[in-house]
Amino acid sequence: MPYVNIRLAGTLTNEQKQQIATEITDTLERIAHKPKSYVYIAFDEMPHESWAIGGRLLGSDK
Amino acid sequence: MPYVNIRLAGTLTNEQKQQIATEITDTLERIAHKPKSYVYIAFDEMPHESWAIGGRLLGSDK
Amino acid sequence: MPYVNIRLAGTLTNEQKQQIATEITDTLERIAHKPKSYVYIAFDEMPHESWAIGGRLLGSDK
Amino acid sequence: MPYVNIRLAGTLTNEQKQQIATEITDTLERIAHKPKSYVYIAFDEMPHESWAIGGRLLGSDK
Amino acid sequence: MPYVNIRLAGTLTNEQKQQIATEITDTLERIAHKPKSYVYIAFDEMPHESWAIGGRLLGSDK
Amino acid sequence: MPYVNIRLAGTLTNEQKQQIATEITDTLERIAHKPKSYVYIAFDEMPHESWAIGGRLLGSDK
Repeated sequence: MPYVNIRLAGTLTNEQKQQIATEITDTLERIAHKPKSYVYIAFDEMPHESWAIGGRLLGSDK
Repeated sequence: MPYVNIRLAGTLTNEQKQQIATEITDTLERIAHKPKSYVYIAFDEMPHESWAIGGRLLGSDK
Repeated sequence: MPYVNIRLAGTLTNEQKQQIATEITDTLERIAHKPKSYVYIAFDEMPHESWAIGGRLLGSDK
Repeated sequence: MPYVNIRLAGTLTNEQKQQIATEITDTLERIAHKPKSYVYIAFDEMPHESWAIGGRLLGSDK
Repeated sequence: MPYVNIRLAGTLTNEQKQQIATEITDTLERIAHKPKSYVYIAFDEMPHESWAIGGRLLGSDK
Repeated sequence: MPYVNIRLAGTLTNEQKQQIATEITDTLERIAHKPKSYVYIAFDEMPHESWAIGGRLLGSDK
């Protein structure tokens, strides 16, 4: 641990995921004093139609 | 928040997901007094073979 | 399955949780055609200070 | 309940998932005294590029 | 990874959690060929009143 | 969305959680182009004895 799960609608490039992983791992090491090697990050890139905000399904009127 | 995650085997139509999101968002507003706009719902529509109940993998004998 | 996880800040009474569980289970049976007995719902009642929205920790200025 | 979520990079065969489900369900019955029929297991077989360990995205140099 | 999340109602002793962790880690190494050192297991021991099965809140009639 | 769940052993101060939330929200806005106001972050500060790494329960020999 820590285990970080990032769930979002749409896709990211590998470059975006690598950059996000680098920054979040650095944040957790610097602020929470967790060793870098222990930080797991799992990305869930989900279809827009798998999310509802305020009762309204995203992407459903495409 | 609230954040609601619904995980199930198989797929739903967008109409089913919209209807479920509408009803659950309404339930949380009415019973838990959470503002509608804050309710996030994320659906995970998973293959049957990703679930086991009682030690038996679903869909594995299809 | 389905497995439903409801995560929110603050606490609910057992009566609220029972009412929410009743309504969501009914919704999933009626709309997604899942047998009632298979529906699992897990509530995570979390401290306000465990949530951040828009980069701002809830409850931290109390 | 119990609800068990297994998240890993790559894929498993149905035979592997069935064997893992059999063993984990047995473990939870024998050690935690939970009835077999109540044990739900959900597998998330994720792309390597959805995981970062120690700040480094898996599979990104393929 | 793998990351395993075990959610159940009630509490376990440290001995039970250690035994479950030993067995599940062994299962994932032997069947899924994942190195032991990479296996993370997180236990969520939840109040009975945080679970509903079949629309009925556990523990609510105590 | 995005919804970010950070699970770790031990506790953080509100200042640490606020700082982590600020940085991760900034990362997701800058790299993934997600509006700040949509970013939810939920912290699970768990007992050491709720984690096992490599088959060994943390904190169990205290």
